[in-house]
Amino acid sequence: MLAKKIILIEDNKSDIDLTLRAFKKANIHNPIVILEDGKDALDYIFCQEKYADNDSIEEPELILLDLKLPIIDGIQVLKEIRNNEKTRHYIVIILTSSKEESDLITSYNLGVNSYIRKPVDFTEFVDVIKQIGIYWILLNESPNSIN
Amino acid sequence: MLAKKIILIEDNKSDIDLTLRAFKKANIHNPIVILEDGKDALDYIFCQEKYADNDSIEEPELILLDLKLPIIDGIQVLKEIRNNEKTRHYIVIILTSSKEESDLITSYNLGVNSYIRKPVDFTEFVDVIKQIGIYWILLNESPNSIN
Repeated sequence: MLAKKIILIEDNKSDIDLTLRAFKKANIHNPIVILEDGKDALDYIFCQEKYADNDSIEEPELILLDLKLPIIDGIQVLKEIRNNEKTRHYIVIILTSSKEESDLITSYNLGVNSYIRKPVDFTEFVDVIKQIGIYWILLNESPNSIN
Repeated sequence: MLAKKIILIEDNKSDIDLTLRAFKKANIHNPIVILEDGKDALDYIFCQEKYADNDSIEEPELILLDLKLPIIDGIQVLKEIRNNEKTRHYIVIILTSSKEESDLITSYNLGVNSYIRKPVDFTEFVDVIKQIGIYWILLNESPNSIN
């Protein structure tokens, strides 16, 4: 079975690069779709606007979501995923440098699965990505793992 | 700072014993509160009935929730935690032997954080408990970690 894709919603080029390198180092080889603003992410997930032809995307293994995003922010992206019957069961992990109390509480109240702070140090960042991979790809039963 | 408690909602004596041994082996030393049926769990979490004197319990680090429970089942416990403003942000992990598709989908639709199947083998079980500890206690920012 082909590994399911990971959706990375992140606008910072160096964080994208860091995450991709960390995935590689952690031996996580799922295909990765990168979406660089909140509107593009929602269009992709809901197959609308320029993604209207993807009439149904294969469910992602997980979504890594930054909070500070152009056009539509991460909290709003999370809200829309949770408000839609088709996507409310998706695994969404906030991966952010924000540790603002309001972001944390709002994310949990909206039903995020997990909230991870990006470490600044690259070695620690690789380790965090590795742990995310071990936990969510190997250990957790994802909502689509019975398909 | 004193480690926050873990609530284990489980009725099977040998699974309780196994989980406690696994926590010990995994060097997880948080206090553990064991509740053996769904009603008792809800009474404890909401400080009602025989727990009415605990007027506000300290927020748990995480809740490990079995599905097949006496009196009130795990799905209903999850639903009541998510429907209450005070508890909806709690980290709830289903830890069960069920891999029924309906349990999996219902749990995610109700907003469970993670769904883990209990391995039968003890060594694997210890490893799973260890991974849960590493991920949720060390890595994840819990909703009350800023307190």
